Amino acid sequence: MSLSGRRKRAAAAAQAKGVEALLVTHLPDVRWLCGFTGSNAALVLVVQPGRGMRARLFTDGRYTAQAKAEAAGVRVRIAAKPAALAACEWMAAAGVGRCGFDETQTTVAGLAAMRKAVAAKAPMFAGVGALVAKLREVKDADEIARMGAAAALGCGLFERMLGVMRAGMAETAVAADLEHAARLAGAERMSFDTIVTGGVRSALPHGRASAAKLPRRGFVTLDFGVVLEGYCSDMTRTVHLGRARAEERAVYDAVLEAQQAAVAAVRPGATAGDVDEAARRVLRGRMVKGKRLDKYFSHSTGHGVGLEIHEGPRLAAKQTQPLEAGMVVTIEPGVYIPGKFGVRIEDMVLVTQQGGEVLTPSPKEWKTVGSGSG
Amino acid sequence: MSLSGRRKRAAAAAQAKGVEALLVTHLPDVRWLCGFTGSNAALVLVVQPGRGMRARLFTDGRYTAQAKAEAAGVRVRIAAKPAALAACEWMAAAGVGRCGFDETQTTVAGLAAMRKAVAAKAPMFAGVGALVAKLREVKDADEIARMGAAAALGCGLFERMLGVMRAGMAETAVAADLEHAARLAGAERMSFDTIVTGGVRSALPHGRASAAKLPRRGFVTLDFGVVLEGYCSDMTRTVHLGRARAEERAVYDAVLEAQQAAVAAVRPGATAGDVDEAARRVLRGRMVKGKRLDKYFSHSTGHGVGLEIHEGPRLAAKQTQPLEAGMVVTIEPGVYIPGKFGVRIEDMVLVTQQGGEVLTPSPKEWKTVGSGSG
Repeated sequence: MSLSGRRKRAAAAAQAKGVEALLVTHLPDVRWLCGFTGSNAALVLVVQPGRGMRARLFTDGRYTAQAKAEAAGVRVRIAAKPAALAACEWMAAAGVGRCGFDETQTTVAGLAAMRKAVAAKAPMFAGVGALVAKLREVKDADEIARMGAAAALGCGLFERMLGVMRAGMAETAVAADLEHAARLAGAERMSFDTIVTGGVRSALPHGRASAAKLPRRGFVTLDFGVVLEGYCSDMTRTVHLGRARAEERAVYDAVLEAQQAAVAAVRPGATAGDVDEAARRVLRGRMVKGKRLDKYFSHSTGHGVGLEIHEGPRLAAKQTQPLEAGMVVTIEPGVYIPGKFGVRIEDMVLVTQQGGEVLTPSPKEWKTVGSGSG
Repeated sequence: MSLSGRRKRAAAAAQAKGVEALLVTHLPDVRWLCGFTGSNAALVLVVQPGRGMRARLFTDGRYTAQAKAEAAGVRVRIAAKPAALAACEWMAAAGVGRCGFDETQTTVAGLAAMRKAVAAKAPMFAGVGALVAKLREVKDADEIARMGAAAALGCGLFERMLGVMRAGMAETAVAADLEHAARLAGAERMSFDTIVTGGVRSALPHGRASAAKLPRRGFVTLDFGVVLEGYCSDMTRTVHLGRARAEERAVYDAVLEAQQAAVAAVRPGATAGDVDEAARRVLRGRMVKGKRLDKYFSHSTGHGVGLEIHEGPRLAAKQTQPLEAGMVVTIEPGVYIPGKFGVRIEDMVLVTQQGGEVLTPSPKEWKTVGSGSG
């Protein structure tokens, strides 16, 4: 879909909320609607009856050239004051009566400043929710292509790391190698702080790479993503160093089965809660040393991903939101046994008309690294 | 200062605003007050008369072990719901009558959810501004030591890059090398997207590293920072490849003089606007090809830095905030001639009792790189 097509959809959604204009200040939303990637921006879509749609992008003097180049087809206004306030003043002058804004992104102080910037009650501001972020949940063909490329880059990096990781290597050195290779392969940045957790640290669901050394015997969890042309990838694999213990094998097999069950549950119309439950059900049925494994699955199954690393939908217990074709979600169940070890396996999955398509096809079978045998 | 000392100062500042409790949800504020570094957190400081100060940290099950380890001395509560809402429910049960919150960080929707989470009018929420962020502007001895270490790491990286950069190298390859070395030297991450702009791209004040190649003849601007033990560094140097043109020399000399003038203006009691004006005045007095150079200085002179890359004070025209000993600010004037080239030079400067101490002492004299001669 073209950027102007996206703007038309956003404007229609705003009109359906009874407003004449939509003020967009969340930067990923601005980028999605007009292509501008600067760090200070407000986009206004005006949909006054009989006057067609008008779009205006507000930013500051640092971005004069960049805004005109990136936001082709949108009139750009350079302002010395904060972009959102310049936008509000312009709307007041343009006679906008009622302006929608995203109350999940605008701060209490920001709204107060917007009200102060316009003459009393013109325009009136009305919270319309995360309307653009909601539209962004369903990706178009261009976005799916970019996300596939980002995911493929991630898979290539994981393949590389299989040959790099070995006992005694610092987690940060693993992260440094991975991130360097990502950069050289064209990544704009990592989509979040790279997680490398070895041995007992694999039991920390969100442990960042530390100075700790990879163990001679135990798991290593690698959870990372790249940003390519603005779009994020996200994947996790857990591999093993040295000889495996029976308990480690049992937990790994259970997590893998749970992850595959959740991937298999992805289809249009399934709810986010259904997919979460598919993973949780498998773990509920598995015991290790007398404990049900779902007790150790302390987070939700996944989340949408796109221009932001965390977007809707949220794949968690009881979430009733139905999946739609074009959504891209992560499926990432994990089991974390405090003081011992943890396992997480994560794919990015595109919701298709038929079901789900895994965008991160790196192997998920048990893998021993750092030695001659696989 | 100890973390409990920081909490006492924040509690006193909250009490002065007439509230019985302070709800802290901005993550750098939470970290500064209790040491917790997780991604979901709310800290409550209760200061009800006659009951001393109580602190409670709210987070979720992913962070049970980490919260207890990092936030020593603070009672931790694990909640399934968003941390801020769990905190509000706890305050309502604890009989807090009036709770301060930071309206510059809390969204309109967030405040509505907080109000809904508590019984009608108990507690009442009152915006008290960025009270903790304001305290954070003045660094204590521990913070100054960490920031000095981060800045020193940055200087070492710049020194390295002098031997790496050469004509024909992609800007992204420069960034990849720099970031890899930063990681191996212990950086947790970069403090912002690394800026590498060669040749005509040096005229973009905020151009990120691109696929463009460094020129055989022209400037390269390197603006980067690392995060070390949570604290950010930030520095910029502009170096030259090949033979210099007279106009390039003239602009470089002017920017260097402006930067040095602003550094010299740093002292307790000087206003942020005074420091900005010191840089701007130099550029106003310099002409290149018939134009005053201040016309090409399109941003403010600097900003505070600490746990966040952009903190107060803001060093911009007309800012009346006085500098205080213990603040760490950037001094980074630049001149950007569209379609031709740009120069920016940036140091981190600690405000001392006597004046300013440059934390990034890398040389600032004209430097030619990528060839045998310097």
